[in-house]
Formats: sequence, C-alpha cells, structure tokens
Amino acid sequence: MAIPIDFYFDFASPYGYIASTRIDEIAARHGRTVAWRPILLGVVFKTTGMGPLPSVPLKGAYSLRDFARSARLYGIPFQMPKVFPFNGVAPSRAFYWLQDRDAGLARRFAQAAYHAAFPGQQDITKPETCADLAANLGVKREDMLAALNDPAVKDRLRVEVEAAIAKGVFGSPFVVVDGEPFWGADRLDQIDRWLQTGGW
Amino acid sequence: MAIPIDFYFDFASPYGYIASTRIDEIAARHGRTVAWRPILLGVVFKTTGMGPLPSVPLKGAYSLRDFARSARLYGIPFQMPKVFPFNGVAPSRAFYWLQDRDAGLARRFAQAAYHAAFPGQQDITKPETCADLAANLGVKREDMLAALNDPAVKDRLRVEVEAAIAKGVFGSPFVVVDGEPFWGADRLDQIDRWLQTGGW
Repeated sequence: MAIPIDFYFDFASPYGYIASTRIDEIAARHGRTVAWRPILLGVVFKTTGMGPLPSVPLKGAYSLRDFARSARLYGIPFQMPKVFPFNGVAPSRAFYWLQDRDAGLARRFAQAAYHAAFPGQQDITKPETCADLAANLGVKREDMLAALNDPAVKDRLRVEVEAAIAKGVFGSPFVVVDGEPFWGADRLDQIDRWLQTGGW
Repeated sequence: MAIPIDFYFDFASPYGYIASTRIDEIAARHGRTVAWRPILLGVVFKTTGMGPLPSVPLKGAYSLRDFARSARLYGIPFQMPKVFPFNGVAPSRAFYWLQDRDAGLARRFAQAAYHAAFPGQQDITKPETCADLAANLGVKREDMLAALNDPAVKDRLRVEVEAAIAKGVFGSPFVVVDGEPFWGADRLDQIDRWLQTGGW
C-alpha cells in the first residue's frame, strides 16, 4: 500500500490554508491519503534566514494581493486575519495532541482552525479559541486547555518541527510525494500530475 | 490598442529563462505583445533584503531540483551554468542597446543569451560572449563591445532597473498585465487565464 503524502503547513500561512482546502481531494483522486503535519515557520526561518512574507519590501505587498487572488481563483473564501503574521503554536500543539487520539479528528480540527483564521479572522493563537474549536468537535474544553500546557505535548511539537527541518522542509505548504518535494500552493497541479504519472 | 505586457527578467534567473520560452506565445494567443525588460536582481535584492535562491539553506537545494523539474514539465532544454548565480550586467546592457535600434533584434538576442546560459553553459557575463551572440544576429562585434562600455548604455540599464523597482518588481520573472502583477514562472497559467478573462 502506498505511503501517505506528507502535507506540511503552518497554521499562520495563507498559502497553507489554500492548499489545505484541496490536498485531500487531489490525493483521493489517485487513491492516496494525506498525513497532515503542522510546523512552525518561525523555527524554520532560524535555519534558513528567511522571514515572513509580508515583512519583505515589495514582495510583502505583492503577497497580500496574491493570497487573495489565488483564493479567488479556486473559489476559496479568504480574508486576512487582523493580526498577521501570527504564531501557530497553540493550534499546532492541539493538532498533535488530537492526532494521537484520532487522526480524523485532528484533521477536522486543523480545517476548523484554518477556517477560523482565514476567513473567520478569529485569533487562533489563543488557547481558548483552540478549546472552542475542539469543543465544536466534541472534545472537552478543559482537556484541550490542559493538553496545551502539557510538557509532553510541547515536546511533541518541537520534535515534529525539527524532523520536518531535517527532511528539508523550509516553507508552507510543503508536500512530499514518495520522496519528491513540492513547495507552494502553486504546486498543487504539479502534485496532481506527479501522482497521475509517477514523475516526468 | 492594448498596451504590451511587461516581462521583467534577470538573465541569470532559471525561472526567467523558463518563462522566456513561453511568454510570447501566451500573449500572442490573446492578441497581445510583450515588452521584454531585463533587470538586475542584485540591485533589487538591496531593496528587498532578499538573496539569490541557491544561497538559502534548504530552499537552495530545493530550487536546483525545481528548476530542472519545471523545465522538464514544459519540455524546455535546461542545464545549470557552471558558475551560478552570475551577473547579468553585460547581456542586459547589450539588450537595451539593441532595443533602441530594433526591438525584434533585442528579443532574439535575449533568447540567444538565455539559451547560451541555460542549457548552453556559456559564460554570458563576458562581453566577448555577448558580442559573439550578437554577431550571430548580424551585429558587428566591435559595435557591441563598444556599446557595453558606453556610459549612456550603462545609465540606460541603471534607469530601467530603478524604474522596475519603483513599479514593485522584486523577482524574476515578473509579469505585469494591465497593471496586474504576477511573480514567478509558475504564474504563467494564471497569466494566460487573466488575459482570457480580464481577471477573476
């Protein structure tokens, strides 16, 4: 059986959000599954020396335009959060904690968190927001709030981010198909084709 | 009559080369023409604080893979030059000097220079190489060599690069369609669609 496609993303990444709305469908079309893997670009940037897009002169203004234009192209509801960039630590910890209990639940949480941030403009950096989102999926608020402060959960996220960097992940979204890396929401059509043909 | 599409590129940019093989055909499909505009990313990077892709940890290795993979996808012959990144000053000056005499000739020179670099692995930073390429197009070698040292030609390039930065150009390729900016060889399909529909 084919191994899952790795889908790395930062919860604060607009391009990650765009990819998140399409990656499962693309994979399913080719009989494949997707392993969702939140990362923290803030940690990755320490390795690469890069910074968040909107802070780069010229490129920053373009990015804001391109986020919205790319979302419109695919009919994806999109709105920039009021604070950006933001820190994806809380939803990432929430994700991995849920992941160890129920992978489908973790994915539904990730989708809910992305939609809360873009276009919902909710502050998903807050533990309370993560607890609310999880509660909507049937998870006890107090369990989620406790998990977000659990040293084991914190370590889990740290290990996942380090493992991603060790595999060469430097941006969001970053998808690995049978060892082949693809960076960017604008590589989804190439991923579709790669899954179809096995490469070119 | 519709204004030309602006196609900004650096002669040392693999993605610029890839776009250069497709941009005229895409524009022509919609009855449009293209104004080719070489720029110098080295100067642009002073504004944005960015650097050449291959020097960025993790992203550099990915870029080398993606250059070749993107070229293969479109059936474009591609080979990395032996020295990379390199300085596009000489071919850019050559281009603008030719442009003032014959725009079609300047474009043919640009295509020849790109093919000499990728996949030809020739050193197009050398005035002699530019003179050879121009000679193949019927331009006297000594005229080209003189032009490359002409202060007016040097100024012309400087002004073009500054004008590009003033318009928000921060990378290569960078295409502007009726005021709408598109960055990257991976935006060519979007450019095609934008030309078709007038936006979305």
